[in-house]
Amino acid sequence: MALIRNVSTFIGFDSEYEEAGIVVFGCPFDGTTSFRPGTRFAPSVMRDESYGLETYSPYLDMDLSDYNLFDAGDLEFPFGNTKKVLDIINSFTLKIVEDKKIPIMIGGEHLVTLPVVKAVYDEYKDLHILHFDAHTDLREDYMGEELSHATVIRRIWEFLGDDRIYQFGIRSGERQEFEWAKKHTKLNKFNYDGLEEAIKEIGKKPVYVTIDLDVFDPSIFPGTGTIEPGGISFSDMMHIMNLIKSLNIVGADIVELSPHYDRSGTSTAVACKVLRELTLAIIAEKQS
Amino acid sequence: MALIRNVSTFIGFDSEYEEAGIVVFGCPFDGTTSFRPGTRFAPSVMRDESYGLETYSPYLDMDLSDYNLFDAGDLEFPFGNTKKVLDIINSFTLKIVEDKKIPIMIGGEHLVTLPVVKAVYDEYKDLHILHFDAHTDLREDYMGEELSHATVIRRIWEFLGDDRIYQFGIRSGERQEFEWAKKHTKLNKFNYDGLEEAIKEIGKKPVYVTIDLDVFDPSIFPGTGTIEPGGISFSDMMHIMNLIKSLNIVGADIVELSPHYDRSGTSTAVACKVLRELTLAIIAEKQS
Amino acid sequence: MALIRNVSTFIGFDSEYEEAGIVVFGCPFDGTTSFRPGTRFAPSVMRDESYGLETYSPYLDMDLSDYNLFDAGDLEFPFGNTKKVLDIINSFTLKIVEDKKIPIMIGGEHLVTLPVVKAVYDEYKDLHILHFDAHTDLREDYMGEELSHATVIRRIWEFLGDDRIYQFGIRSGERQEFEWAKKHTKLNKFNYDGLEEAIKEIGKKPVYVTIDLDVFDPSIFPGTGTIEPGGISFSDMMHIMNLIKSLNIVGADIVELSPHYDRSGTSTAVACKVLRELTLAIIAEKQS
Amino acid sequence: MALIRNVSTFIGFDSEYEEAGIVVFGCPFDGTTSFRPGTRFAPSVMRDESYGLETYSPYLDMDLSDYNLFDAGDLEFPFGNTKKVLDIINSFTLKIVEDKKIPIMIGGEHLVTLPVVKAVYDEYKDLHILHFDAHTDLREDYMGEELSHATVIRRIWEFLGDDRIYQFGIRSGERQEFEWAKKHTKLNKFNYDGLEEAIKEIGKKPVYVTIDLDVFDPSIFPGTGTIEPGGISFSDMMHIMNLIKSLNIVGADIVELSPHYDRSGTSTAVACKVLRELTLAIIAEKQS
Amino acid sequence: MALIRNVSTFIGFDSEYEEAGIVVFGCPFDGTTSFRPGTRFAPSVMRDESYGLETYSPYLDMDLSDYNLFDAGDLEFPFGNTKKVLDIINSFTLKIVEDKKIPIMIGGEHLVTLPVVKAVYDEYKDLHILHFDAHTDLREDYMGEELSHATVIRRIWEFLGDDRIYQFGIRSGERQEFEWAKKHTKLNKFNYDGLEEAIKEIGKKPVYVTIDLDVFDPSIFPGTGTIEPGGISFSDMMHIMNLIKSLNIVGADIVELSPHYDRSGTSTAVACKVLRELTLAIIAEKQS
Amino acid sequence: MALIRNVSTFIGFDSEYEEAGIVVFGCPFDGTTSFRPGTRFAPSVMRDESYGLETYSPYLDMDLSDYNLFDAGDLEFPFGNTKKVLDIINSFTLKIVEDKKIPIMIGGEHLVTLPVVKAVYDEYKDLHILHFDAHTDLREDYMGEELSHATVIRRIWEFLGDDRIYQFGIRSGERQEFEWAKKHTKLNKFNYDGLEEAIKEIGKKPVYVTIDLDVFDPSIFPGTGTIEPGGISFSDMMHIMNLIKSLNIVGADIVELSPHYDRSGTSTAVACKVLRELTLAIIAEKQS
Repeated sequence: MALIRNVSTFIGFDSEYEEAGIVVFGCPFDGTTSFRPGTRFAPSVMRDESYGLETYSPYLDMDLSDYNLFDAGDLEFPFGNTKKVLDIINSFTLKIVEDKKIPIMIGGEHLVTLPVVKAVYDEYKDLHILHFDAHTDLREDYMGEELSHATVIRRIWEFLGDDRIYQFGIRSGERQEFEWAKKHTKLNKFNYDGLEEAIKEIGKKPVYVTIDLDVFDPSIFPGTGTIEPGGISFSDMMHIMNLIKSLNIVGADIVELSPHYDRSGTSTAVACKVLRELTLAIIAEKQS
Repeated sequence: MALIRNVSTFIGFDSEYEEAGIVVFGCPFDGTTSFRPGTRFAPSVMRDESYGLETYSPYLDMDLSDYNLFDAGDLEFPFGNTKKVLDIINSFTLKIVEDKKIPIMIGGEHLVTLPVVKAVYDEYKDLHILHFDAHTDLREDYMGEELSHATVIRRIWEFLGDDRIYQFGIRSGERQEFEWAKKHTKLNKFNYDGLEEAIKEIGKKPVYVTIDLDVFDPSIFPGTGTIEPGGISFSDMMHIMNLIKSLNIVGADIVELSPHYDRSGTSTAVACKVLRELTLAIIAEKQS
Repeated sequence: MALIRNVSTFIGFDSEYEEAGIVVFGCPFDGTTSFRPGTRFAPSVMRDESYGLETYSPYLDMDLSDYNLFDAGDLEFPFGNTKKVLDIINSFTLKIVEDKKIPIMIGGEHLVTLPVVKAVYDEYKDLHILHFDAHTDLREDYMGEELSHATVIRRIWEFLGDDRIYQFGIRSGERQEFEWAKKHTKLNKFNYDGLEEAIKEIGKKPVYVTIDLDVFDPSIFPGTGTIEPGGISFSDMMHIMNLIKSLNIVGADIVELSPHYDRSGTSTAVACKVLRELTLAIIAEKQS
Repeated sequence: MALIRNVSTFIGFDSEYEEAGIVVFGCPFDGTTSFRPGTRFAPSVMRDESYGLETYSPYLDMDLSDYNLFDAGDLEFPFGNTKKVLDIINSFTLKIVEDKKIPIMIGGEHLVTLPVVKAVYDEYKDLHILHFDAHTDLREDYMGEELSHATVIRRIWEFLGDDRIYQFGIRSGERQEFEWAKKHTKLNKFNYDGLEEAIKEIGKKPVYVTIDLDVFDPSIFPGTGTIEPGGISFSDMMHIMNLIKSLNIVGADIVELSPHYDRSGTSTAVACKVLRELTLAIIAEKQS
Repeated sequence: MALIRNVSTFIGFDSEYEEAGIVVFGCPFDGTTSFRPGTRFAPSVMRDESYGLETYSPYLDMDLSDYNLFDAGDLEFPFGNTKKVLDIINSFTLKIVEDKKIPIMIGGEHLVTLPVVKAVYDEYKDLHILHFDAHTDLREDYMGEELSHATVIRRIWEFLGDDRIYQFGIRSGERQEFEWAKKHTKLNKFNYDGLEEAIKEIGKKPVYVTIDLDVFDPSIFPGTGTIEPGGISFSDMMHIMNLIKSLNIVGADIVELSPHYDRSGTSTAVACKVLRELTLAIIAEKQS
Repeated sequence: MALIRNVSTFIGFDSEYEEAGIVVFGCPFDGTTSFRPGTRFAPSVMRDESYGLETYSPYLDMDLSDYNLFDAGDLEFPFGNTKKVLDIINSFTLKIVEDKKIPIMIGGEHLVTLPVVKAVYDEYKDLHILHFDAHTDLREDYMGEELSHATVIRRIWEFLGDDRIYQFGIRSGERQEFEWAKKHTKLNKFNYDGLEEAIKEIGKKPVYVTIDLDVFDPSIFPGTGTIEPGGISFSDMMHIMNLIKSLNIVGADIVELSPHYDRSGTSTAVACKVLRELTLAIIAEKQS
């Protein structure tokens, strides 16, 4: 044991900022959560529990310890002021992108995706989005608020425009949201059937991957605010990772783990493994 | 906020009794539960949690808010007197049936199905039963008691007779129960393979659907008294709903949710969604 | 069972608004909670659990069922917009006060006390505050935000001024808060030693009582966001109720129950009993 | 390890029936529980957890391993038939009493005390009762039922008559129950102030001690169906044990532990220690 | 109820040692568990919960109550001395094997498999192993320790040698472990694809089956120390049981249930059912 | 947010090793725990939860942020090898003591106190011990093992000798342990009555303070392996801290928090506050 202050990072994220090509950071914000709050605890619980994970992936036959990865810890937010929080996230992501590194953000609720995508979009104007989620997140507003976990993809659409957003696993929303999606996004109900075609369409254009973990079936991921039975399995996700590893991913996030709703720790373990596989999938394309 | 007393109903069940075609009511009874009690809490927990649900079903492309649905709340029972409880339930259901409305009962343990079916049978003598369950529920008695969650289908058979009861998903029981079933019911072990044939056989005769939620695999539904691994998935149930929506359903129930055994809330969310889909499936046939 | 829509109120709060002298309402807001959110669930959980409570108090020998009490349910809030929430609360309280009724508000986090006190103060300019809490809540701002559970008493002081606020049970805060209190409030560390003297000083002037339930020791009240061992006992609180029943209380609240952190239900049971005793204590003075 | 079938008893209860002077047995019944069921699990959980306990009491300086004590396990009951259950308990207790042994019964809910006291009363017509409880349990009926946990002491009074029942710790009930008690029992509100006087009055007459564990404050005993803050402490109970060890106790019970409501295990540990101390207190008088 | 000391066995294991052909015993040891301890509680919790299980298997159409089965209870271990624990287990298993009975051991952590297999190997020198697990367990040492749950199969290999060990379901380990396995064991990643071929290769040679229950997907089995999503389903396991029932199984174990991490009881129910089916599968071959 | 790797320390322990006078470190070992393991999680959970704590103590009117304090994180241990673990702890403590700093160790189970005290004793031969605990910990061996949480004070006595060890709060043990203590230690049953006299006797000789947190009553501290009702209150502990702040404390520890047994977080909050107050009490004497 070295006589230095105790360090806490995701397993395998042991490099310094300067040398790292990928930067993970936590956004512990759940301020617009309408049902059950608690996603604020996700990044720190994931760091603690990641030590139950191996750095080696038998799925991709790659090892986190072979790469330079940096964990910046959690951003610090004021409480009760949504706009300030989004500004803090946007500024931090801009710094990462300007330093030519790839941001992987750990939420928090889904609204925190907005300022991250905005920062990545400032660098990559032809950005496309792969959106995995149980919910459409396409409302114009939610109880009068424009900034909400339930409106985040709609807000992103406002600067990306039509045909840039691919949605998978969607199984909950208002009728109007599904109607709206028919014109403006490419929405796959219940599963990820259209993913291979989407990958072909996108080619080597820059892609941002946002994974609302409630896309999983609650049998494997009960630790989230709004439970939606009927989602994808863990094997499905490993298959998805294997597919997207050919894409030019320039940013990503994993949101909506609310660890305390799953005392068994399964949800956190799933989130940690998705983080490992997603990180390796991003690297795979850069190496090939 | 209106200055009237606080009302608590399942989401989308906002009509008054007189105008409603379907009446939901709770039977918070678990007095013969042999293993882990707690189903008494199911209907009130479901009401609270139903607000995490959308009224729109992307499965059936129908919306609860388009129909007149009434939630009568929970019946009030004495404690420790099984017979009185069954009488109270029977009387209430008779009232609903006589008013030409369709009852959907929320248990409670499975025994509460008996007085509901009896009341519906009084109106529809050619009634058939679709029974989804992990257990046969066909014992002659249980530790000497004739009125028990473990005997309920046997009691119903006593007035319905042979070949009226279709059983699906069954994976637990004594050897004698399975033997008995060969002569008197149509029992499908483990799955719902015979459902399509059953639907053909029944045609437009009146049907009562009783769903013991432990028919689900505990991966998706751990919140029940007696855990039986090896059950059906949520997708299976959505498929079942799609099949039975052609039937002339005149009564239904959902029983054996014991919400406190699943602190994640998944089981309650599943039960709420089954209630939504079942309600819409009943309506679908009436509209067609 | 009557064929009307299911009603859910605190036990004993069965009157209509017009006839009631006391109005209870819930403010399910926890948007500035810095540590563990969840107080949003308090009022509805309290309603459900209040049915384990008797309406009769052996402490005061009074019975809730002898009085006209109204439960308005929970106010509905947007998510992520603190200012709008406070406005909604303020408007509703103003209505109650203008109708010459006494508001009892159930939080939510402590910030929701601010708009209630402001509304009561608009009617009673010589208002005094009895503040029971583990924390001083006297910060000028909290991580840059002026509207916070940690600043609420400071904000109230800004319109009430010096010597109107009595604080009891305080055992946590920054050094500067304790210093500031020496000049502007009457702060009792750890216990309620100065309460009898405060009651004498106040006499028949109008009083608002705000009870942050973390004033209790966590042995009897673990269900709160920030645990502070060293608080008062339940017997202490019953003694406090007996003392304040001579005061002219014109408004009150109970805040910071976060029921899901105490799965045993003890904290909710304590909150319900405090609500019963507080309601009866307010009535006691009006009757004498 | 001997090659005999696995035995499970309370720690220190290692004798055979014939040689034992005290017989412990479990009554896992909670059929009339009105709020939260679960006391059926108490005796078996107590057996398992008793192995965290020492057999030696530093309070009484006595050791369970010095005496002949027998654990008969749990009685087996039908489900949903209250009267049959009470008959089974009564018969078993009669056997113990006729064999000149002292029964200590572990509930279950409080109604199971009735058949045990009845059996003991058949042997000792001048029986007195010490009743420790949060609730009066003096209702004439409960929702129409005469056999209920809420009526048990009233039922016992019907054969014992006035002035034989001493009640301690009572802090919940309807106004009429408290009124009724003034004429028929000796009721101490909130605490056990009158215990020393009661002991003097009783002298060497036979005594039955019934401890509803909700007499404890929920800070030390949250694991029960109906939480009533304001109860006695563990030190109080140890003091009570020290006082009653001079009495001629001919039967006793401990009821209303519902272990799953207290996941920390504190309530079960308290119940186990009360069982140890109560057993030793009964022996103490026999030895002196 | 007989007046003998309370007996606690797995349901259906009601015979005496002498007449039984199969002996179940518990090894409540978790001393080298690196992440979350608690498997020590597995055998006693399984005994208690097994009473929610039927003795009849609708999968195999066999009934535990038709056979002579003995439950020896749990071995007693010192704490903190790994070697002594392994010696105690080894001695006890040797006794069973020498008495020509088949041992089924319930862990505890996976290290306890080592002394059991060693004892069985002493009797059957051509022993083969079927190993179901999420982890390879093939490390040379774990943080310097040779005796560890992470090295147990490597230790067994040291006396069994190459090509005797078949591994299924493996999805976690260090890269070196997977490399090592290529030369020394037959490792199936993720699933049990090679099982039918293995069964053919083994023929009627003696087989030991070791089931680390984390081979299951955590959706159906979250109650274990190290969660590894991506495992097999319950139906898969029933299929495996059906396949191996033709083998000459001379010993078996079920390890790594940590029941308190799954409060719903699903994991324990799964473990109990696997024990039932595994026992019946062993018998099936002996009868044929 | 600085772009350095994420640091995790107890709140207020922000200095570097070289400048610090006090060094905190964690010993996450529970290898000899006989009942319920889990103390291994204590130090890291305490670090995470310490951010709900203020650095300012209203009890002592001192602030952690005024002093140089270092948190070394957790020592890393092999699993299943008790002796190696104790050696690692001893070596690390020797380094601290040789650097003239004061060690405060966070367990882990109580056995980890042995190597810390041994290291401190090597520097201070006239060391005295203040031992706060529910248990005597004076067994000669525990199930044959000399190194155990149940023998730790006996092992310490072997090098310290008679009359150096003061024990407080003791309420559980075997009769022989209490007998042995009469000759060799100064044991106070149940409370800390003899503390003031002990302080006088010790004067300015070096003192080591070991606090087994189960000395607390489980009402305020249920989060420990072996629950012993009848302990001291939080106010008692604050009083103890105020008394011992005059002593020349040269080492200290806090052991036996098992955080997962108390899901409310109360036990962890208590442990954090004890750590704060103990640290400040140690400093108080150095400053005076």
